[in-house]
Amino acid sequence: MSLNSFGHLFRVTTWGESHGPALGATVDGVPPGIAVDPELLQFWLDRRKPGQSKYTTQRREPDQVEILSGTFEGRSTGTPIQLMIRNTDQRSKDYGDIAEKFRPGHADITYFQKYGIRDYRGGGRSSARETAARVAAGGLARAVLGRLAPSVEIKGYMTQVGPHGIDRAAFDAAQIEENPFWCPDAGAAQTWADYLDGLRKSGNSVGAVVEIVARGVPAGLGAPVYGKLDTDLAAAMMSINAVKAVEIGEGMAAATLTGEENADEIYMGEDGQPVYSSNHAGGILGGISTGQEIVVRFAVKPTSSILRSRKTITKTGEETEIITKGRHDPCVGIRAVPVGEAMMACVILDHLLLHRGQIGDAGGKIGPQEGGNQGGQDEGPLG
Amino acid sequence: MSLNSFGHLFRVTTWGESHGPALGATVDGVPPGIAVDPELLQFWLDRRKPGQSKYTTQRREPDQVEILSGTFEGRSTGTPIQLMIRNTDQRSKDYGDIAEKFRPGHADITYFQKYGIRDYRGGGRSSARETAARVAAGGLARAVLGRLAPSVEIKGYMTQVGPHGIDRAAFDAAQIEENPFWCPDAGAAQTWADYLDGLRKSGNSVGAVVEIVARGVPAGLGAPVYGKLDTDLAAAMMSINAVKAVEIGEGMAAATLTGEENADEIYMGEDGQPVYSSNHAGGILGGISTGQEIVVRFAVKPTSSILRSRKTITKTGEETEIITKGRHDPCVGIRAVPVGEAMMACVILDHLLLHRGQIGDAGGKIGPQEGGNQGGQDEGPLG
Amino acid sequence: MSLNSFGHLFRVTTWGESHGPALGATVDGVPPGIAVDPELLQFWLDRRKPGQSKYTTQRREPDQVEILSGTFEGRSTGTPIQLMIRNTDQRSKDYGDIAEKFRPGHADITYFQKYGIRDYRGGGRSSARETAARVAAGGLARAVLGRLAPSVEIKGYMTQVGPHGIDRAAFDAAQIEENPFWCPDAGAAQTWADYLDGLRKSGNSVGAVVEIVARGVPAGLGAPVYGKLDTDLAAAMMSINAVKAVEIGEGMAAATLTGEENADEIYMGEDGQPVYSSNHAGGILGGISTGQEIVVRFAVKPTSSILRSRKTITKTGEETEIITKGRHDPCVGIRAVPVGEAMMACVILDHLLLHRGQIGDAGGKIGPQEGGNQGGQDEGPLG
Amino acid sequence: MSLNSFGHLFRVTTWGESHGPALGATVDGVPPGIAVDPELLQFWLDRRKPGQSKYTTQRREPDQVEILSGTFEGRSTGTPIQLMIRNTDQRSKDYGDIAEKFRPGHADITYFQKYGIRDYRGGGRSSARETAARVAAGGLARAVLGRLAPSVEIKGYMTQVGPHGIDRAAFDAAQIEENPFWCPDAGAAQTWADYLDGLRKSGNSVGAVVEIVARGVPAGLGAPVYGKLDTDLAAAMMSINAVKAVEIGEGMAAATLTGEENADEIYMGEDGQPVYSSNHAGGILGGISTGQEIVVRFAVKPTSSILRSRKTITKTGEETEIITKGRHDPCVGIRAVPVGEAMMACVILDHLLLHRGQIGDAGGKIGPQEGGNQGGQDEGPLG
Repeated sequence: MSLNSFGHLFRVTTWGESHGPALGATVDGVPPGIAVDPELLQFWLDRRKPGQSKYTTQRREPDQVEILSGTFEGRSTGTPIQLMIRNTDQRSKDYGDIAEKFRPGHADITYFQKYGIRDYRGGGRSSARETAARVAAGGLARAVLGRLAPSVEIKGYMTQVGPHGIDRAAFDAAQIEENPFWCPDAGAAQTWADYLDGLRKSGNSVGAVVEIVARGVPAGLGAPVYGKLDTDLAAAMMSINAVKAVEIGEGMAAATLTGEENADEIYMGEDGQPVYSSNHAGGILGGISTGQEIVVRFAVKPTSSILRSRKTITKTGEETEIITKGRHDPCVGIRAVPVGEAMMACVILDHLLLHRGQIGDAGGKIGPQEGGNQGGQDEGPLG
Repeated sequence: MSLNSFGHLFRVTTWGESHGPALGATVDGVPPGIAVDPELLQFWLDRRKPGQSKYTTQRREPDQVEILSGTFEGRSTGTPIQLMIRNTDQRSKDYGDIAEKFRPGHADITYFQKYGIRDYRGGGRSSARETAARVAAGGLARAVLGRLAPSVEIKGYMTQVGPHGIDRAAFDAAQIEENPFWCPDAGAAQTWADYLDGLRKSGNSVGAVVEIVARGVPAGLGAPVYGKLDTDLAAAMMSINAVKAVEIGEGMAAATLTGEENADEIYMGEDGQPVYSSNHAGGILGGISTGQEIVVRFAVKPTSSILRSRKTITKTGEETEIITKGRHDPCVGIRAVPVGEAMMACVILDHLLLHRGQIGDAGGKIGPQEGGNQGGQDEGPLG
Repeated sequence: MSLNSFGHLFRVTTWGESHGPALGATVDGVPPGIAVDPELLQFWLDRRKPGQSKYTTQRREPDQVEILSGTFEGRSTGTPIQLMIRNTDQRSKDYGDIAEKFRPGHADITYFQKYGIRDYRGGGRSSARETAARVAAGGLARAVLGRLAPSVEIKGYMTQVGPHGIDRAAFDAAQIEENPFWCPDAGAAQTWADYLDGLRKSGNSVGAVVEIVARGVPAGLGAPVYGKLDTDLAAAMMSINAVKAVEIGEGMAAATLTGEENADEIYMGEDGQPVYSSNHAGGILGGISTGQEIVVRFAVKPTSSILRSRKTITKTGEETEIITKGRHDPCVGIRAVPVGEAMMACVILDHLLLHRGQIGDAGGKIGPQEGGNQGGQDEGPLG
Repeated sequence: MSLNSFGHLFRVTTWGESHGPALGATVDGVPPGIAVDPELLQFWLDRRKPGQSKYTTQRREPDQVEILSGTFEGRSTGTPIQLMIRNTDQRSKDYGDIAEKFRPGHADITYFQKYGIRDYRGGGRSSARETAARVAAGGLARAVLGRLAPSVEIKGYMTQVGPHGIDRAAFDAAQIEENPFWCPDAGAAQTWADYLDGLRKSGNSVGAVVEIVARGVPAGLGAPVYGKLDTDLAAAMMSINAVKAVEIGEGMAAATLTGEENADEIYMGEDGQPVYSSNHAGGILGGISTGQEIVVRFAVKPTSSILRSRKTITKTGEETEIITKGRHDPCVGIRAVPVGEAMMACVILDHLLLHRGQIGDAGGKIGPQEGGNQGGQDEGPLG
């Protein structure tokens, strides 16, 4: 039971601080024989990389991933894969003046209260730099999904920045890659650009909402009662820095619906699979996937490091003020998009392996039943 | 790794179905020497018990808990405590007509797709009856907290039913026990009563929002990065039946705030402990408790069993309609309140034990520092 | 992480004390659709049951197992199966005179030193009665193996009682069920009978060696480095009461062999599978099964409860003597045989599910290679 | 649940192969504020390092450990510590000729059967090089023990090489560091030197027995039923490469003892603590430490890589012969001594933290009882 680990069978343990020599992910449970292409991992890392637009931190990190173990001739061996990313642009002097003061909204004070250690170098373990390791692990998860469940497609985007939400009617997936905000609505992207320019100049920051959708997930993934797919997704997303809320499907709005409105009606599709009239459930019923799109949304709070003076205290208990200089994101939600995608990939793969472990390739088939109510257990898995 | 278990050191495994002989919780990691009073456990169970008002299911279950192991002369021995609740009012004939049809919004279809088994007896393992076991385990967690951290107080209540939210200005904790909705606003309680009467008569149901607050939690509980206090709380709450969203502190609204608005400023309190100007963070920074109130909110979707006809399919793939007769809650959120409280108690106790395990009773003290930056490790814990 | 749980995917949590109301096993991860026959579980339990011959304790317990959850119409649903056994013949007065004294060789003193609780009722949680729950869980594991890997056969027997070992040349599997010692050598069985008669009359007891063999286990089960099949078997057997040593294959004798003697040479069998010239390895290489017989041996110390006076101390620190009256086994190793079999079944099933989870039904096939060194990953497990 | 992880609260995950770029250990759960001295870790690693005498492999590896995370200003922060060791002397051409053949006694064949991958570079993940990571983690565990339980001393040595055991009467702890065999008996060391010289010249190898003793371990560590101290020690030692048996205290010999002989009698010591007349139990009763020396013994099989021709098969199923050239240990047991010590340190620290988590610093005190049978629970751990 490592508190820095995530997942059941596909198990990711991340390590490292924002200003140590390196950080990384130890990934266990990877099926063997999967092509692990460093350039593909790098592709995903590059999407999270800081300094790509004026809307994210200007810290310059190549975030280059090294594969230290677990592959042979370019394929996974089934043993732990160690993914390491060196920290290069550490500039720890930038942070020197906050060695004694706790930054409001940051974990400085709670880490000190817990551990009695004040690692003032950019947040230490609580820094969002840790998420680079998740993205690398998520790239690995995607590679495995590509082999085991090629139907799965995972896509994240922002739906709100501060008070400005997207117009769902203007949703255009093709837009997502066309602006620095992963915004599916070209009009909203322009609004956000203007809004964030203003915030950045005024030294302020703002929160955001990110939505992650997984399409093509087979029905039947997840488990009762604490191993529900939505339980693991909630944990996965809430574990991302600055996330304060997680929604599945209708999310908080489910509170306002009646049972009649909320229950997605079921029909038979042309391919003999169930189809639904709507997806209030976000693709999950009773913690198990329905085969519809899995829809997760999370709120990211505004970056706490701002150029506005805030009242705080020092380690020795004196009241003071602080302005957090340095290289910060005006809207840290932007870089949370690839992280949320990575967590989605890890959770889905993990549940795919769990399902295969307990149940094999079978399951219940809707349609004329053969052999009665016998469960989906196949015979002789290693025959 | 049991998917029906929750917690790290204080470990709860629940088992049982809505219409089997019994259900219960196997609770491991309970500290020894704690008085375990069956009447106290029963007190908590009675709060969740169905049939207490016309707003909850009319199923009659005494929900009487038996302690089968782990105590001696009324105190915990440190070994697993088995809490069993017999099912008595099973009336499985009520459910007979749904043996072939999948109820929309329920886990019927996904359980069948996963396991190939159609346990049509009231939802089987996916039934909210499972939460009785959680409430019993939560009672145990409260008993331990009463000994180890008596400052902790946990309180849950509803803040919204369908479109009707409470008026925060009218918040009165004393009201919570005075109405069948755990509503802290007497006016809202009256509105809800009228609203739910109408819904119940029309055979419909509605969603709700529940808020759980823990006061007096010591600073320093929680851990990076996947063992964050909010990560575990998100998983705990999302694992409750029908929950579709979890918020910490500002929750989804954090997306709309600026960094300046959101960062809770820090001062020194009169007792030499930090105090905060506000609690947007919901008592958690970087996954670790600040010592402020821990505030968690979750949305419960409307009961899916309604007396309105909905389209669905059968196990054999035929399209049909269904009206779910039986004894159902017009607003299942009501009974989720004691469940949310129980999960909060389990999570906080678990992190208290984890903290004690890794760090002992010490930690970082804010104030004049002795001996430099040495961490909170005490000497010779078993000396 | 429950310390009273065992297994990764097939997860057994036992609970209960020797003199509480009941004990049992919560078994999670059972594949769905498996026929769970209470009479079959009872069959295995009856083999462990006390009081079956004069060589085991005269405590009379029906050890009747109740299935409280996780089945529907006689088949597993895939959710936790709760197996409960009521304690009936508790006679706690037998134990009353040891409430203040610690019995040498027993866990009385260490449980008190750990927990500060003296549950003097027959050993409490440290009693060998706990193993009834394991045998029930093992029966479940056998039922699943019967479906998933019907080639697997598990057989346990005793090979030594005190100074008297079996004659391997006289090994006759048919004898195992023909004597009260699970002894495969009729001559040794007679020697043991005489020897144990003498010991019993003199109020003494003696140790034993038990061997458990699993035949028909597919090659490829197990995992590096801490999830080795032999690692899990060592833990499984060492966790049984009174076990002081575990051997795989040659065991301790491996220390005396040369590399030339010890390395099992490999040939091709008639069926195109590898065969070995010998089985010094006990069927496991690098923690992974070879397809040969898995051979595990463990030593059980003599029953500590004897009618001979031994020096000890009281809870309050006074020196005294104790004679442990009551109903005890002169050779507790006898009843450890069905327990060892049960643990073997659980470990093998667990690794079968783990293998299926990570790798699917495939793996490396020895013989002409198609498609290069690509690993055994199959495509689309849920397709 | 990573199968490459070990421990509950002090959690070690190792990664890496014998011929990849690096290997290491991700160590989570380290208490904060512990001085982590790279030179001290190196001290332990150097003891395991190959090539130190003619009795171990001539592979030259500096085995230099790098600390990549989890420390600040020389002290642990409480977050994961990544210990990396670069592989430098890989000479993979040495192994080229075994790419197609499976070496008898090695994991080559089982890894291939499991994963479908033939990583022929020196054993890959199954190589004993992995144990370097354990020794580094063990060094960390010792550093923590030095702070939390300074009374604990751990010492390993060899007691048998092939047919030659030590003379217990000649046991002299001071000898252990004086010969290349960690042999506590100077006479036996000479015998072994001669014996191993002969074996080495003839291209053969031999097995050994290693004993690890932990002194000064507090009473009360360990837990029922699958979290027993001896269960975890058995797993820890059996997980070391080439180990085929694990004994606690009397071990296999316990089978030959009577209850009267085996039960260690209890007295009161001068310091008011219990003392025992003997230590057949090896310091563990019911899975919990007694405060006596913890004594673990394990058998290491002979190195399978020998210069003698052995029959085997190829990946494509052809029968052939193999002589394993390369740089191998004539007695791999020698280098298992520091590994066994490291595993002992990890297990004891882990159980110390677990005990502290569940029970705090208290426990049952033998002597005049105050306040009745109330258990060792202290009040307000974070007060």
